[in-house]
Amino acid sequence: MSIEEFVERASEFYDYPLTLTNLIKWGVDTFPEQEIVYAPPDAPKLRLTFTQVWDRVRRLATALEQLGVKPGDPKRLGTRVGALEWNSHRYLELYYAVPGLGAVLHTVNVRYSPEDIAYTINHAGDEILFVKDEFLPLLQAIIPKLKTVKKVVLMTDKPEPPQVKLPGVEVYNYEDLIRSSSPYDFKDFDERTVATLFYTSGTTGPPKGVFFTHRQLVLHAMAIAISTSAPPYELSVRDVVMPLVPMYHVHAWGGPHAMFLAGQKYVFTGRMDWGYILKTISEEKVTYVYGVPVILYLLLTHPDSPKYDLRGLKYGNGGSAMPEGLYKLARSRGIIVINGYGLSETAPVIAQALFKASTLNWPEDKKENYLMKGLRQIPLTFIRVVDEYGKDVPKDGKTIGEIVVRSPWLTPAYFKDPEKTRELWRGGWLHTGDVAVWDSDGHIWIMDRLKDVIKSGGEWIVSTKLEDIISTHPAVGEVAVIGVPHPKWGERPVAVVVPKPGQRVTEDDIKNYLMKFVEKGEIPKWWVPDKVIISEKELPKTSTAKADKKILRELYKNVLSA
Amino acid sequence: MSIEEFVERASEFYDYPLTLTNLIKWGVDTFPEQEIVYAPPDAPKLRLTFTQVWDRVRRLATALEQLGVKPGDPKRLGTRVGALEWNSHRYLELYYAVPGLGAVLHTVNVRYSPEDIAYTINHAGDEILFVKDEFLPLLQAIIPKLKTVKKVVLMTDKPEPPQVKLPGVEVYNYEDLIRSSSPYDFKDFDERTVATLFYTSGTTGPPKGVFFTHRQLVLHAMAIAISTSAPPYELSVRDVVMPLVPMYHVHAWGGPHAMFLAGQKYVFTGRMDWGYILKTISEEKVTYVYGVPVILYLLLTHPDSPKYDLRGLKYGNGGSAMPEGLYKLARSRGIIVINGYGLSETAPVIAQALFKASTLNWPEDKKENYLMKGLRQIPLTFIRVVDEYGKDVPKDGKTIGEIVVRSPWLTPAYFKDPEKTRELWRGGWLHTGDVAVWDSDGHIWIMDRLKDVIKSGGEWIVSTKLEDIISTHPAVGEVAVIGVPHPKWGERPVAVVVPKPGQRVTEDDIKNYLMKFVEKGEIPKWWVPDKVIISEKELPKTSTAKADKKILRELYKNVLSA
Repeated sequence: MSIEEFVERASEFYDYPLTLTNLIKWGVDTFPEQEIVYAPPDAPKLRLTFTQVWDRVRRLATALEQLGVKPGDPKRLGTRVGALEWNSHRYLELYYAVPGLGAVLHTVNVRYSPEDIAYTINHAGDEILFVKDEFLPLLQAIIPKLKTVKKVVLMTDKPEPPQVKLPGVEVYNYEDLIRSSSPYDFKDFDERTVATLFYTSGTTGPPKGVFFTHRQLVLHAMAIAISTSAPPYELSVRDVVMPLVPMYHVHAWGGPHAMFLAGQKYVFTGRMDWGYILKTISEEKVTYVYGVPVILYLLLTHPDSPKYDLRGLKYGNGGSAMPEGLYKLARSRGIIVINGYGLSETAPVIAQALFKASTLNWPEDKKENYLMKGLRQIPLTFIRVVDEYGKDVPKDGKTIGEIVVRSPWLTPAYFKDPEKTRELWRGGWLHTGDVAVWDSDGHIWIMDRLKDVIKSGGEWIVSTKLEDIISTHPAVGEVAVIGVPHPKWGERPVAVVVPKPGQRVTEDDIKNYLMKFVEKGEIPKWWVPDKVIISEKELPKTSTAKADKKILRELYKNVLSA
Repeated sequence: MSIEEFVERASEFYDYPLTLTNLIKWGVDTFPEQEIVYAPPDAPKLRLTFTQVWDRVRRLATALEQLGVKPGDPKRLGTRVGALEWNSHRYLELYYAVPGLGAVLHTVNVRYSPEDIAYTINHAGDEILFVKDEFLPLLQAIIPKLKTVKKVVLMTDKPEPPQVKLPGVEVYNYEDLIRSSSPYDFKDFDERTVATLFYTSGTTGPPKGVFFTHRQLVLHAMAIAISTSAPPYELSVRDVVMPLVPMYHVHAWGGPHAMFLAGQKYVFTGRMDWGYILKTISEEKVTYVYGVPVILYLLLTHPDSPKYDLRGLKYGNGGSAMPEGLYKLARSRGIIVINGYGLSETAPVIAQALFKASTLNWPEDKKENYLMKGLRQIPLTFIRVVDEYGKDVPKDGKTIGEIVVRSPWLTPAYFKDPEKTRELWRGGWLHTGDVAVWDSDGHIWIMDRLKDVIKSGGEWIVSTKLEDIISTHPAVGEVAVIGVPHPKWGERPVAVVVPKPGQRVTEDDIKNYLMKFVEKGEIPKWWVPDKVIISEKELPKTSTAKADKKILRELYKNVLSA
């Protein structure tokens, strides 16, 4: 036998696909006694060991196969199965049972409008929907629009499943399916099979689908298992973790998959109720929570918040920039805030405020600033900051460019949208649409969304920087800075300011206030907005509770040309 | 375009092979300023940053290509390039330059006999050899036997390269090649391309070749980056690591690859000189060293050892079981010893004395025993303990079976040896040849080599357990317990004992001593050896300094039947 033939022949023995099934199997085999807790605000707490979860996953898979779920392969998607659910052990079971069959779990964003929910279910081609009972009214409203759904499986925390009929679909109950099914024997298959699909809102047009393979999700879990055990996270088997991002949102940032690698106890919170979550953090001795900044804000300003000792709790931030005031509030309560960064398109984590040997000894204030705003790429991920021609901008901490990324866990495409895919992946790097500076240490400091940056006379003005400054004015409640078409400069900044209740502020107040920062050298004079609009109404918001600048730009598009 | 076509088309954008090149690139991009230190005993210390190492790797790759190195692919090996070298920055450069071209690095075991070295070079088909100057006499002795070597590249720590002529081969100098070459632009290729090849000694026959792909080495590095950041290791960017296993031995257990993921400073020691290593540990503030037990013994018994404060130093043990006496000696110096396990065939790490949430609170003495002897499978690796039919033995901490393993980084085969490969991989699991017990916590406790276990009347007697006990007798210097053919029981144990210099001990002394342990219930009565041979000569040793039981079995095969 030639060497060549032999190397080839050997492969049948040793190959090991990076599937979610092998991941959970390993976690269960290694930490059979570790527990997950389901603690919803309106039903009794449930504790399950990894072994029990695995048994339920296996039974659920048998039921899914009997419901007609079919596997895919790297070139063909398996059956799409949608889920409308809050964070729960059941969602975790779906995370493994559906992809374990080679099928695709569509994690439906339940915060979307009913129209968008129906759009995404149709676009995904979901054949089966798993629906928590509280979403039944929603489902009943949209069901006439659903084109591919044949079966619905109801989930409930109540002792008795709801009795419901839905036109044109068969209805099942989750716990009945699990009770009546025997454990499935999962088989290995190609790790490049698609495991999950979900939708992300763009600035224009309908939601866009992103999807990930088993291999991608396993490698992402391995990378965050490495990064979150490093300083400043230093998470270990000692920690108890509570995701405060929905499990429909980029697999709760991949945390539950990393749980099985790290052997940590996880707590799932059901529909998020901040008072109950504070109580659960205390009862379950939770040491690490993670979510977007507004979640931290809601926890800290909840009336029950002062009752709880939060010292030592770690908060992993992501989704958008941590406001300085919120950071300081959290620090005053003894919480350790750690910045992170990613997109739906990036599975999501690609950067975190991780230390290096050379930065561990930074002075405290520099470290704090880094934890609040700084970033470093996580293992195997390459982040660059580039100009509009795709060329690296100088690593000087000043020159602004777009963040592009290469990593083993980036969405292959926008689902069924070749045109947007080409735009996303131009030049072979995934374009994040975020603008940032990087410095000689290789750290990344995010500035703004590319679409929100204001291009004035060929130079960039960072809207978030202006917002940060204006928000520190004592009379300002809300602020958004947008680019408005200008006959000479192309675009010029306009600020929209909502005063705090009972307070007054004028355009000149804001401009004079900004001039102080010009004098201190914090911003150039030409960044000062041409116009400050004082609005009595709350700013319009996106589905993720950020100021909706698209609406504001439309509303004020003529204020500088009129 | 159909969904199916689209998923397929997308792949050209997002794919990211798990190659050693992407691994080092990421490390250099993330920790450009981190340093590696080359500290040989007989030349000045050298410090290089990751950036400098990368520049040298790229130049070396250009030179290798010009020397005719050709890439392989998953079905065909690239050019084999051998290396005879101690631990050094140059070895590290070869780790990336050769596989980065799609070629295969053969890490030659320089401790083998000249005959075996020539055998392995011929068997691998090495076309180029990288040779440290001190191995020139060896090379000159074997060169007439080498069938495939066309070129030799000399490496030296001296300011001037040696001037040497070798019959029939072209000779180059390492630093000249690097100086005269421009940096190579590495390309992505299939991660299942073989990267390394090396040989491991069996109990019978010539050394056997094992080999690993890029994918396997990257996944192994990720897994040990996870496990060594977990308790009890808790290594981070704060740590300074010194491998005390040779880099030709299973890639120094994968440590240097994990270095680039973890961003740690590494110290490479050249030819190992224990006094100089102690000095370097102190000078470079090394916090973690790893190697086989005898290395720890040599460090602790070196005349200079008492001069150094070793408190807090961590010692990662592997290769063979940590003797209890040595463990206690290390603890008395404040060293934290952590057990690990693996084989050449397993890349090597598959288990370590890792804690779980449920074991962190064990009493101190139980923890110490676990750190000394216990094991837990590392991420993605499945370890089972099975009987001769491949069935799991009970997890009772008592029933002995063979360790079998499944993991993403196991050698596909013994190189060019289908028969031994089938034996290794029978039943689809890699058979380690080690016997162990496992317990209900899923921990593994290694007992013996399968070939050294004594099978008496259908029951197993663990030779190492008997050796452990006999070694605690105050007059015993060395001991080996072997199975000797017996007409009635098949095999019975025989102990071979070498008294300490100037001491006397008799067969009855040893048997009486063992009976005390029988009375305490530590061993069954039928484990007591039928014969104790008192030998005045040192025991014969293998190339890894263990008692050579193969020779002893041959020597004493008739002592029970005569």
